[in-house]
Amino acid sequence: MAYSGGLDTSYCAVYLSQDLGYEVHAVCVNTGGFTQEDLKTIESNAYKMGVSTFKAIDAVSTFYDKVVKYLIYGNVLKNNTYPLSVSAERIVQAIEIIEYAKTIDAQFIAHGSTGAGNDQVRFDMIFQTLAPHIEIITPIRDGKLSRKQEIDYLIENGIAMSWEKSQYSVNKGLWGTSVGGAETLTSLKALPEEAYPSQIQKEGKEQVKLAFKKGELIAVNGKEQSSELAIQQLNDLASSYAIGRDIHVGDTIVGMKGRVGFEAAAALITIKAHHLLEKHTLTKWQLQHKDYLSSFYGMHLHEGQYLDPVMRDMEAFLESSQAKVTGDVYVTLQPYHFTLDGIESVNDLMNAKFGTYGEENKAWTASEAKGFIKIIGNSNKIYNQIHQES
Amino acid sequence: MAYSGGLDTSYCAVYLSQDLGYEVHAVCVNTGGFTQEDLKTIESNAYKMGVSTFKAIDAVSTFYDKVVKYLIYGNVLKNNTYPLSVSAERIVQAIEIIEYAKTIDAQFIAHGSTGAGNDQVRFDMIFQTLAPHIEIITPIRDGKLSRKQEIDYLIENGIAMSWEKSQYSVNKGLWGTSVGGAETLTSLKALPEEAYPSQIQKEGKEQVKLAFKKGELIAVNGKEQSSELAIQQLNDLASSYAIGRDIHVGDTIVGMKGRVGFEAAAALITIKAHHLLEKHTLTKWQLQHKDYLSSFYGMHLHEGQYLDPVMRDMEAFLESSQAKVTGDVYVTLQPYHFTLDGIESVNDLMNAKFGTYGEENKAWTASEAKGFIKIIGNSNKIYNQIHQES
Amino acid sequence: MAYSGGLDTSYCAVYLSQDLGYEVHAVCVNTGGFTQEDLKTIESNAYKMGVSTFKAIDAVSTFYDKVVKYLIYGNVLKNNTYPLSVSAERIVQAIEIIEYAKTIDAQFIAHGSTGAGNDQVRFDMIFQTLAPHIEIITPIRDGKLSRKQEIDYLIENGIAMSWEKSQYSVNKGLWGTSVGGAETLTSLKALPEEAYPSQIQKEGKEQVKLAFKKGELIAVNGKEQSSELAIQQLNDLASSYAIGRDIHVGDTIVGMKGRVGFEAAAALITIKAHHLLEKHTLTKWQLQHKDYLSSFYGMHLHEGQYLDPVMRDMEAFLESSQAKVTGDVYVTLQPYHFTLDGIESVNDLMNAKFGTYGEENKAWTASEAKGFIKIIGNSNKIYNQIHQES
Amino acid sequence: MAYSGGLDTSYCAVYLSQDLGYEVHAVCVNTGGFTQEDLKTIESNAYKMGVSTFKAIDAVSTFYDKVVKYLIYGNVLKNNTYPLSVSAERIVQAIEIIEYAKTIDAQFIAHGSTGAGNDQVRFDMIFQTLAPHIEIITPIRDGKLSRKQEIDYLIENGIAMSWEKSQYSVNKGLWGTSVGGAETLTSLKALPEEAYPSQIQKEGKEQVKLAFKKGELIAVNGKEQSSELAIQQLNDLASSYAIGRDIHVGDTIVGMKGRVGFEAAAALITIKAHHLLEKHTLTKWQLQHKDYLSSFYGMHLHEGQYLDPVMRDMEAFLESSQAKVTGDVYVTLQPYHFTLDGIESVNDLMNAKFGTYGEENKAWTASEAKGFIKIIGNSNKIYNQIHQES
Repeated sequence: MAYSGGLDTSYCAVYLSQDLGYEVHAVCVNTGGFTQEDLKTIESNAYKMGVSTFKAIDAVSTFYDKVVKYLIYGNVLKNNTYPLSVSAERIVQAIEIIEYAKTIDAQFIAHGSTGAGNDQVRFDMIFQTLAPHIEIITPIRDGKLSRKQEIDYLIENGIAMSWEKSQYSVNKGLWGTSVGGAETLTSLKALPEEAYPSQIQKEGKEQVKLAFKKGELIAVNGKEQSSELAIQQLNDLASSYAIGRDIHVGDTIVGMKGRVGFEAAAALITIKAHHLLEKHTLTKWQLQHKDYLSSFYGMHLHEGQYLDPVMRDMEAFLESSQAKVTGDVYVTLQPYHFTLDGIESVNDLMNAKFGTYGEENKAWTASEAKGFIKIIGNSNKIYNQIHQES
Repeated sequence: MAYSGGLDTSYCAVYLSQDLGYEVHAVCVNTGGFTQEDLKTIESNAYKMGVSTFKAIDAVSTFYDKVVKYLIYGNVLKNNTYPLSVSAERIVQAIEIIEYAKTIDAQFIAHGSTGAGNDQVRFDMIFQTLAPHIEIITPIRDGKLSRKQEIDYLIENGIAMSWEKSQYSVNKGLWGTSVGGAETLTSLKALPEEAYPSQIQKEGKEQVKLAFKKGELIAVNGKEQSSELAIQQLNDLASSYAIGRDIHVGDTIVGMKGRVGFEAAAALITIKAHHLLEKHTLTKWQLQHKDYLSSFYGMHLHEGQYLDPVMRDMEAFLESSQAKVTGDVYVTLQPYHFTLDGIESVNDLMNAKFGTYGEENKAWTASEAKGFIKIIGNSNKIYNQIHQES
Repeated sequence: MAYSGGLDTSYCAVYLSQDLGYEVHAVCVNTGGFTQEDLKTIESNAYKMGVSTFKAIDAVSTFYDKVVKYLIYGNVLKNNTYPLSVSAERIVQAIEIIEYAKTIDAQFIAHGSTGAGNDQVRFDMIFQTLAPHIEIITPIRDGKLSRKQEIDYLIENGIAMSWEKSQYSVNKGLWGTSVGGAETLTSLKALPEEAYPSQIQKEGKEQVKLAFKKGELIAVNGKEQSSELAIQQLNDLASSYAIGRDIHVGDTIVGMKGRVGFEAAAALITIKAHHLLEKHTLTKWQLQHKDYLSSFYGMHLHEGQYLDPVMRDMEAFLESSQAKVTGDVYVTLQPYHFTLDGIESVNDLMNAKFGTYGEENKAWTASEAKGFIKIIGNSNKIYNQIHQES
Repeated sequence: MAYSGGLDTSYCAVYLSQDLGYEVHAVCVNTGGFTQEDLKTIESNAYKMGVSTFKAIDAVSTFYDKVVKYLIYGNVLKNNTYPLSVSAERIVQAIEIIEYAKTIDAQFIAHGSTGAGNDQVRFDMIFQTLAPHIEIITPIRDGKLSRKQEIDYLIENGIAMSWEKSQYSVNKGLWGTSVGGAETLTSLKALPEEAYPSQIQKEGKEQVKLAFKKGELIAVNGKEQSSELAIQQLNDLASSYAIGRDIHVGDTIVGMKGRVGFEAAAALITIKAHHLLEKHTLTKWQLQHKDYLSSFYGMHLHEGQYLDPVMRDMEAFLESSQAKVTGDVYVTLQPYHFTLDGIESVNDLMNAKFGTYGEENKAWTASEAKGFIKIIGNSNKIYNQIHQES
């Protein structure tokens, strides 16, 4: 069973092992949200809940390679706002869990999602697709259990942990942290300052240099490392300015609108910086067609369609488009926001050698410009002349 | 001739009236950049340059109705950054000027654009399309004149105004102000604080309420007025926080990359607030297909193709899509940035009556959810099963 | 209940009225598949099955106005093949039936679809959307009944009609006839000649003149009439040449691939002729963006999403795009196929007055052409020069 | 200089070598239009015109690998009609010629295009992009020469070949033959039977089996060979039925509408057969997104933008999408037209094992289907309920 240590999966662990008498193998997939410390606590709790074995899978690199990389290539922000932090994680968690289940010849696979949200769709679809023979068990969804019912059940079963509902439910991962609370259940209000995981710690301004190589973030302030570590470094840096907060309003897979707060400093800065570098290094049509594909890539990913082969085709396009997206981007961090200062790249297509926009230039003559305009305006002219007359 | 009172058009006015002996009729189209005071100065200068008549056309409402409205409907930000402030103005200026030229039976039409930029394309194309019989005259482009040459010429001709090049060239209009300078000629640097027209005047936070009706901004903080006035009110409010600055890097019509700073507080806030309202009131597919069309609407407009009939078709789509985009959006202004707090609308599709995302809900059962997932995952399952076997 | 007189709906009528004791009100929506004769037979049979009332709704014009018109405007052929004949009909039938059900204060609404296909989705979705308070009853789907079971049941209940399964199941309507049979259950074979409803009756060639006005077919060979009648006239004419047969392979709403034969002479000829007229009267970008929207319009319609408001937005675009699509198209009919000969239109943008493609022309000079090419090739040149060097 | 042996390039050869005294190196790129016999004649004529050297480049495989392959992957038919036969050839010819010019250190490069058409744009752009230092010479364009002037000049220079203008100008290549004539200069008329290069030679029907492997045609009727040879074999077969004729109406790069007849049996059959195989082997979203990209791939190619790096990105997508497009397609040839019968593929996603569309199936229950429909219809239901009330 997918086990995160939260109330829902704790309930499931106890219920499945004790009430139903299953041999429960817990698996916890870390996509950047857990420290080693966290994982130890989760493991020890799992055993208290009655699981037979516990397995922690470190999937941070896998998460980056399979999904995050392409979200950067595509500058994917759902509804132009949300970096798909949680949606993206769930996909990789589901794949890792089901692959693990297959290695231990599991007969059933359990998860703790309710019947109201997106996660059940992502988990079920990926489980069913990759292991059609393994049956899915979902006690929370089936029982339509309330939080209170789950807590009462756990106490009855001798699990006396502190389950008081924190005011805000938080989901943390490499690509951002989602925050839900009373405010996000309706449309009117922003989340209060204290709901966000990072609190402001620095004042003033600080310029950061982000180095990209073929679209991947390879260094922050000159420190070369794996992209997932660079993202974490950037996130630590920017979170101290409380950068990256916003609220996403979107269409759930089950047809309702949903609203969720998030804090994703590294994701937002990386995407915006990467996009700026692309504006300098890609052609107009690369930018245009990338946008079409990326927007759908985000939609399909959000809706759990990661295994549709069209996703591989889109990734091939995105990979190809990054061949020249290499260079440094300078970003200034400030309390609550950041600005993009500029870029430096050998592939910069804005190059004074070929003329400077708007300035006098020697690349062509006035009469060449007139010829250009005369012919490029041809179709409109013909259209208007015909319709003026008719 | 198109006359703005700047160095280029002043040169043209003197050159055409005095050197070439034309009877010059100056026309100045105000798309939100000029005060009444400005226009008086421009008029009196025009006569000094030797023009026969001067006509000021107030095109702020026309600008809003013909272009800005659709840029809001479409949330158009070129390359996800630039509200197309100048591109949009030029279109309306060109149309107003050529229509005026036709009413006075002009034989020639002159503008002061160089041969290196986008504006020549927009002016020429619209002039040629709407009045193929009127010949275009462009002294600056034809002479490849430098700024110094123009100033010298004007001094020789007794026009002793102060033409020292200000460090930054600024173009102001209803939908934003563009700022060019040494920094924007290369890729690396941001514009300095002082280059921007608005300087910070307020500290702290201030919430603003924006009322939209069928996609149009009809009131700021409860004051109902025409949309163009509401935009100006919002701009005054937000500019005191120095909101709305950024740098646009884009593809010019003539194929080079160009970079330009801008400050467009009202444009950015209006678009982001409008988009948020749309996320609450439009369906997933309305949002998706609007994005495709709006992106191309922006590209075509930027490239001067406003008269292509496809623009009218897109406007019909956009107009139709706004039927339910009515409600209030709450925005908090702060120094240099703003946040969207939330919305209130009778058309809000996020409505607790139909279930709340992620929470326990009564709209469907666990087994209905399972049926949904089973079937919606069908195609991926079939695909994977066939390719696992083969 | 939706009643067509076929085996499935006959079973439902008897089962609901006799076994379950409901007061059954049968409604039959004619979208072009039934003659007056047919409808009389259907009505008299309905009463034999035990229905309390029978209502025939003539929805041919409604069908044309609500759906077919836009399929023509958009040249919609699903997967570039299928005019969506049946998909489109079901939508209008569902709307008509549920609106009728509301007028008679029905408590339940029944249809005869199975649980395996697209039609159940279209019917249920539209019923639930337009009348959430009316409960849906689907005896065939619920009972997973086989054909044999249904026939046996009807015979037991004294309904002794001839229900031998004809070798091919046929669904006829204004916009085409679908044909299913043993061959279409697998991928390999074409349907045999005799499976198609129309058999060849004419040899040789025959030219037909189709007159369009703002995108609508208003006359065939000069006979002006309503578009739905013109379509029927064209269909009669072309069917005698056995034109319009093909097999559609597509993605069903429930995730499987499906294959169905069809014969749709008028639909195919009208769409191809209309498209040719558009190529002469619309601009490049109108054609391009129409294609994007039309393709999705077809997808959404096929999947039963007709009531999504995005469909209205797309229709607004399509309507706007047809303003100039007026003229005559000449088509030559031959056994099994047709060719488009040419068009005549005052709105034809291919007009010798503005130069003739590829021929010597006076619209521009060689040096203007060179200027055009020099500048339009700019971006590729810059890109290649930078990457040659780097 | 680009030399094809036609009137225009013959004029250029004589003019450049004799009048202007250049050392002329003729190069003739064969993209499938010339036999060995043709090439010998062309060579011997070239020397008569005064060229110093003659080089024939066999670019059929290059043409297939660089362009035709992707046109098949993308099922590219411009305006849903034209396989881009000539547009595609010109690109490859231009690249081959300029690469050759660079190897011989040419100072100038000449071609025979007029100033009115698309070819000048394709040639100039590719020449300028790949060899900015080589100057382009275009005597026909510069002199705005008429056919008669060219013939007179050649006769004066002792070149007495028969230059009577054949009634139809024909351009033949691997991917089709274009046919221009009096009829195609206006909009009304079809080309007469005799204008087409292939005349009907067979009656009756003939089934052909086309084998595809990862999207490439690898065998016709079981004969495995290179794709370019398979295309030629198919073309010979189908041309004897006079299949593949049509007229293309499209937007030229210079803004006018143009009309051209063509015969492209192999291109049309290959694309339609390939598309059918894709409908069986690709998912819905692969088909949908491929369509978007392919349509733009065709537009950019047509407009000479082959060297834009976005073309490589699109090719990466297309290549990836073909991984499973393997199988046999059965096509029946008949006089003037063909029909697609069916396919056979291990990758066929229409597989009875997973249920058969519309038939009773065991893949899911009635209540699962109802759950699916209930939830997939959610968003429309919410929308309508809110707007019914408001």
